Amino acid sequence: MRLSARNVLSGKIVDVAKGQTTAHVRIDIGGGKIITASITNEAVEELGLKAGDAAFAVIKASDVIVGKG
Amino acid sequence: MRLSARNVLSGKIVDVAKGQTTAHVRIDIGGGKIITASITNEAVEELGLKAGDAAFAVIKASDVIVGKG
Amino acid sequence: MRLSARNVLSGKIVDVAKGQTTAHVRIDIGGGKIITASITNEAVEELGLKAGDAAFAVIKASDVIVGKG
Amino acid sequence: MRLSARNVLSGKIVDVAKGQTTAHVRIDIGGGKIITASITNEAVEELGLKAGDAAFAVIKASDVIVGKG
Amino acid sequence: MRLSARNVLSGKIVDVAKGQTTAHVRIDIGGGKIITASITNEAVEELGLKAGDAAFAVIKASDVIVGKG
Amino acid sequence: MRLSARNVLSGKIVDVAKGQTTAHVRIDIGGGKIITASITNEAVEELGLKAGDAAFAVIKASDVIVGKG
Repeated sequence: MRLSARNVLSGKIVDVAKGQTTAHVRIDIGGGKIITASITNEAVEELGLKAGDAAFAVIKASDVIVGKG
Repeated sequence: MRLSARNVLSGKIVDVAKGQTTAHVRIDIGGGKIITASITNEAVEELGLKAGDAAFAVIKASDVIVGKG
Repeated sequence: MRLSARNVLSGKIVDVAKGQTTAHVRIDIGGGKIITASITNEAVEELGLKAGDAAFAVIKASDVIVGKG
Repeated sequence: MRLSARNVLSGKIVDVAKGQTTAHVRIDIGGGKIITASITNEAVEELGLKAGDAAFAVIKASDVIVGKG
Repeated sequence: MRLSARNVLSGKIVDVAKGQTTAHVRIDIGGGKIITASITNEAVEELGLKAGDAAFAVIKASDVIVGKG
Repeated sequence: MRLSARNVLSGKIVDVAKGQTTAHVRIDIGGGKIITASITNEAVEELGLKAGDAAFAVIKASDVIVGKG
């Protein structure tokens, strides 16, 4: 499936931390940059996400704030 | 100001395209990766955003979807 | 690509309205329900979105508000 | 209250799963389609949300990604 | 309709600026604070939003970033 | 850092409630108005957020829904 989301960043999962309903997944996208995603535990299980997996961080352009200075 | 947002990616603006109310700003965060942000024209003007500026892409963890496969 | 997003609704595009930078895409997901998406013009062009196309509306669970009464 | 949000989908709650701070509410919107919402426990309690309740899934157009193919 | 969104701030519209598809609505919520909302033109027309109207700014808790310092 | 986000509301933290991965922070922005933010525990720890702290609620214009009536 191709997506309208402008930002699809490939990387490798470095960490999956599950809480009671919500999990945090950290993806190394290269160049020393890590993206943290907060997703449902259900998604972690359904996709079988674990450290070492190749994965994408998908971010809609309207969810990006620009900072300066 | 420090932010709770987990993802603050430094880079350089490569392009600013303004529409009537909404602008698209593309930020090169290195490693061949470009982040597109959709923000208000007002913000572009207030921050004086233009190609070549150092800038940050700020993204809340709850706005990141994980893709696999 | 499989996605962590909990809501991936299949349907058919009924309308694409482009502005200067932002487009509105309406997707009929059946049962008389239409989903409106606000996306970049760039995405419309890249995916070649037009009325009649099969498409999906992808929505992260954290972006859904529940209303009652 | 009428809302600017373009997507207000009526349905029936099929499941409420509470974690420590965040709950997942699943709403059957008909036609075999289920919407999952991730909301605060506080909201679940304040609205008294439970399986069987009529409810709405409210989604802003700018939070919808379009997928194709 | 009652909403799961934790933030429902009452105020008065001070400005509505329409672009080609997207409009910016500014709401004075008192105490010298103005909230800017970016919504569809369609929503502006359907709700008949104009300066002087009483209105609410509705914001999901997961869309709020905390800043410090 | 200056931000493109149109809504940066100053206030004082009145409450921080941590769950297993997600925390709720409530900020009094004056005029009897409280903003609730749902953020990661990690952010709470990193910024050292606690009741009594001066803080800002940062909200992107595209995340604000307008309600009327």
